[in-house]
Amino acid sequence: MADWWTTDATHDPALTSWVESAQGHADFPIQNLPIGLFSPSGLAPRIGVAIGDRILDLRACADAGLLPDDLAAACRGSVVNDLLGLPADRRRALRHGVSGLLSDPAHRSAAAFLHAAADCTLHVPARIGDYTDFYVGIHHANNVGRQFRPDNPLLPNYKYVPIGYHGRASSIRASGVPLRRPLGQRKPPEADAPVVGPTTRLDYELELGVWIGPGNALGTPIPIAQAADHVAGFCLLNDWSARDFQAWEYQPLGPFLAKNFQSTISPWIVTAEAMAPFRMAQPARPQGDPQPLPYLLDPGDQAHGALALTLEAWLLTARMREAGGTPVRLSRGPATSMYWTVQQIVAHHASNGCNLNPGDLLGTGTISAPTSDGFGSLMELSIGGKEPITLPNGETRAFVEDGDEIILRAHASAPGRVSIGLGECRAMVMPAP
Amino acid sequence: MADWWTTDATHDPALTSWVESAQGHADFPIQNLPIGLFSPSGLAPRIGVAIGDRILDLRACADAGLLPDDLAAACRGSVVNDLLGLPADRRRALRHGVSGLLSDPAHRSAAAFLHAAADCTLHVPARIGDYTDFYVGIHHANNVGRQFRPDNPLLPNYKYVPIGYHGRASSIRASGVPLRRPLGQRKPPEADAPVVGPTTRLDYELELGVWIGPGNALGTPIPIAQAADHVAGFCLLNDWSARDFQAWEYQPLGPFLAKNFQSTISPWIVTAEAMAPFRMAQPARPQGDPQPLPYLLDPGDQAHGALALTLEAWLLTARMREAGGTPVRLSRGPATSMYWTVQQIVAHHASNGCNLNPGDLLGTGTISAPTSDGFGSLMELSIGGKEPITLPNGETRAFVEDGDEIILRAHASAPGRVSIGLGECRAMVMPAP
Repeated sequence: MADWWTTDATHDPALTSWVESAQGHADFPIQNLPIGLFSPSGLAPRIGVAIGDRILDLRACADAGLLPDDLAAACRGSVVNDLLGLPADRRRALRHGVSGLLSDPAHRSAAAFLHAAADCTLHVPARIGDYTDFYVGIHHANNVGRQFRPDNPLLPNYKYVPIGYHGRASSIRASGVPLRRPLGQRKPPEADAPVVGPTTRLDYELELGVWIGPGNALGTPIPIAQAADHVAGFCLLNDWSARDFQAWEYQPLGPFLAKNFQSTISPWIVTAEAMAPFRMAQPARPQGDPQPLPYLLDPGDQAHGALALTLEAWLLTARMREAGGTPVRLSRGPATSMYWTVQQIVAHHASNGCNLNPGDLLGTGTISAPTSDGFGSLMELSIGGKEPITLPNGETRAFVEDGDEIILRAHASAPGRVSIGLGECRAMVMPAP
Repeated sequence: MADWWTTDATHDPALTSWVESAQGHADFPIQNLPIGLFSPSGLAPRIGVAIGDRILDLRACADAGLLPDDLAAACRGSVVNDLLGLPADRRRALRHGVSGLLSDPAHRSAAAFLHAAADCTLHVPARIGDYTDFYVGIHHANNVGRQFRPDNPLLPNYKYVPIGYHGRASSIRASGVPLRRPLGQRKPPEADAPVVGPTTRLDYELELGVWIGPGNALGTPIPIAQAADHVAGFCLLNDWSARDFQAWEYQPLGPFLAKNFQSTISPWIVTAEAMAPFRMAQPARPQGDPQPLPYLLDPGDQAHGALALTLEAWLLTARMREAGGTPVRLSRGPATSMYWTVQQIVAHHASNGCNLNPGDLLGTGTISAPTSDGFGSLMELSIGGKEPITLPNGETRAFVEDGDEIILRAHASAPGRVSIGLGECRAMVMPAP
């Protein structure tokens, strides 16, 4: 189906909101309307929609009778899972309702349901049943593969299998929650045995997160042509990684403690509907690469399944903060560096009958551009720590240091369209316990 | 702490129940009292305790005022998570209360709260937030390692790191739920490219499951000396595996679709308290093996942290079933083939600050004995399919076939103690979709 690849009046670039701050807002103009879970100061979490620098309280809208019954019930949840589980046409109905409410000056009275975002706490929006991380950034796979396996960077399965592995759901935190530098085992190359201590090679990974919508029953694969119906929205994901732990522990069953100590997401779910104008053709595979296997190949997906999204990573060090400085950009690159589309990873995940549920989170894996100005991790930027990068204030970084804040951002843009953003994914590193 | 390693009156071998079928019951005598989630015919799931061939309805006990307030609240849950999250002393209080109720003939009126187990449906007892599978069966690691990496069966990290990886929580099902043979990619050795189809190397894995109790806050490791306080109980786990998918997909990030299509658990949680009489010393490591690193080494754990538990795998083929036959045993071996104790895998999992939550499930990984009569998977028994085993009725098996039912069982025994069991973990394989 995937008719959310089509645009409608909610995407009209001429549409404006009576919420003044929405006009020209870099992330949340009226064309976006992302869904999240927020607490106004001192109150319990509730579902809301970001508009400019405000948040619309959907529970209050439901209680005021502004939403049809099914949407009202889903919007009264203490997490967004029921909302994500709605069929795509009902999610779109919610978008249309909220768009009308916030654009038509006749509804200015709904200002009573707005909160200043700056006064609210944002939460992980869903109860994440399962979190899966993929590895679809082919330039990242090449860069990292070269460091772990110099003779064999890209394994023979890479161009056939959207490589993924299960991650830890419990340690996913919303933007703003600091993380502790983890303790763990690492084996220095010259040592006979591993040592235990704080990671010396803490890294970030710039990823896109994908929120699963309705999902499938156990034993029933999702055909690629229907995969888009199960993509509810997007966020940013920082898959914090301890590279020294990873190198020692990852064989034969994959990364574990190197990546499950904390992962940070941007708290707003930018819906699949909001992304409609920013759909684009999946870039052609390089000459000589195999065609995707039939269960991963769909003409609609090839024509519209990629995202015109630019991803960025920024760094604010303690010294920069103390000097009153602003973050510096570490990298910037397009989401088209994904070798597989979001729909392909969804179809692959369910191809063996594995059941996906509303509120499950998928990570794309680090998305690096082909050149170093778009590398999505310090491991790549510093070539495994061997060539530390120099920051404008003279500091250098091989890996992330205590007091550093990593900030991920992403914006979607297309000719004649109002650009939208995913909001910030930010966290500061605290010293080891 | 870990004072649940001590026995008390609830373990007295002379203790009997007024529930007649409990006496001499292979799994559920009064000394066991496992916790589960069951539906009496047509009714909503509720928490219960197995006693002989009956189930005691703990919600009904709570409603009848038979439990103190905190336990009553936890026992009214629609899943067991709150109960598992109670401190160990409160779990023990529940055990004492239920033991008294079911042993003292003065409480025979509680028979009104019993259901015939045969008339009930048993469910996955907890909402499993995260599921992690380990790899602590060293003979299994050697056997499988030899097939995947003939020159390098046991990797250098194995004796330092309790190797584990995250699994899929959504596809865990209770004993009795059939599974569909999954579709997926496999690459025949002689082919240039992978093919897609039903797995041709479906296997079972005989594992012990560990239910997590209170758990830890994110960023706060669990010291090994306290790890036992966070082990709420045990079950059996069949980690169904598609060996052909696994060989093709598992590098570099570990198993994914080869193992997440369905996992089967025995539905009863045999509590850590019930296992107290069956604690034993962890066998000494072979000469030349390194000592566990300090964060994994505790004298109490070494002295009492292993389990006197015998694990078995049985097979009932379609032909045997049609002939009115009974299952045949494929293997039998001791849980002491675990290279790491349950407490060591808990402490390791949380050592980087990763938060464990009540109702999380850990698998030990396949537990194989050193000799083939105790190998815990067909891949080992048939040496990678090369030497199919012959069953008493003349059938042969290299891997699991459609219509086969795999049944896992385990019993704990110790001198002078009443033996207890974990109940059955059983599932039948249905043809691919």
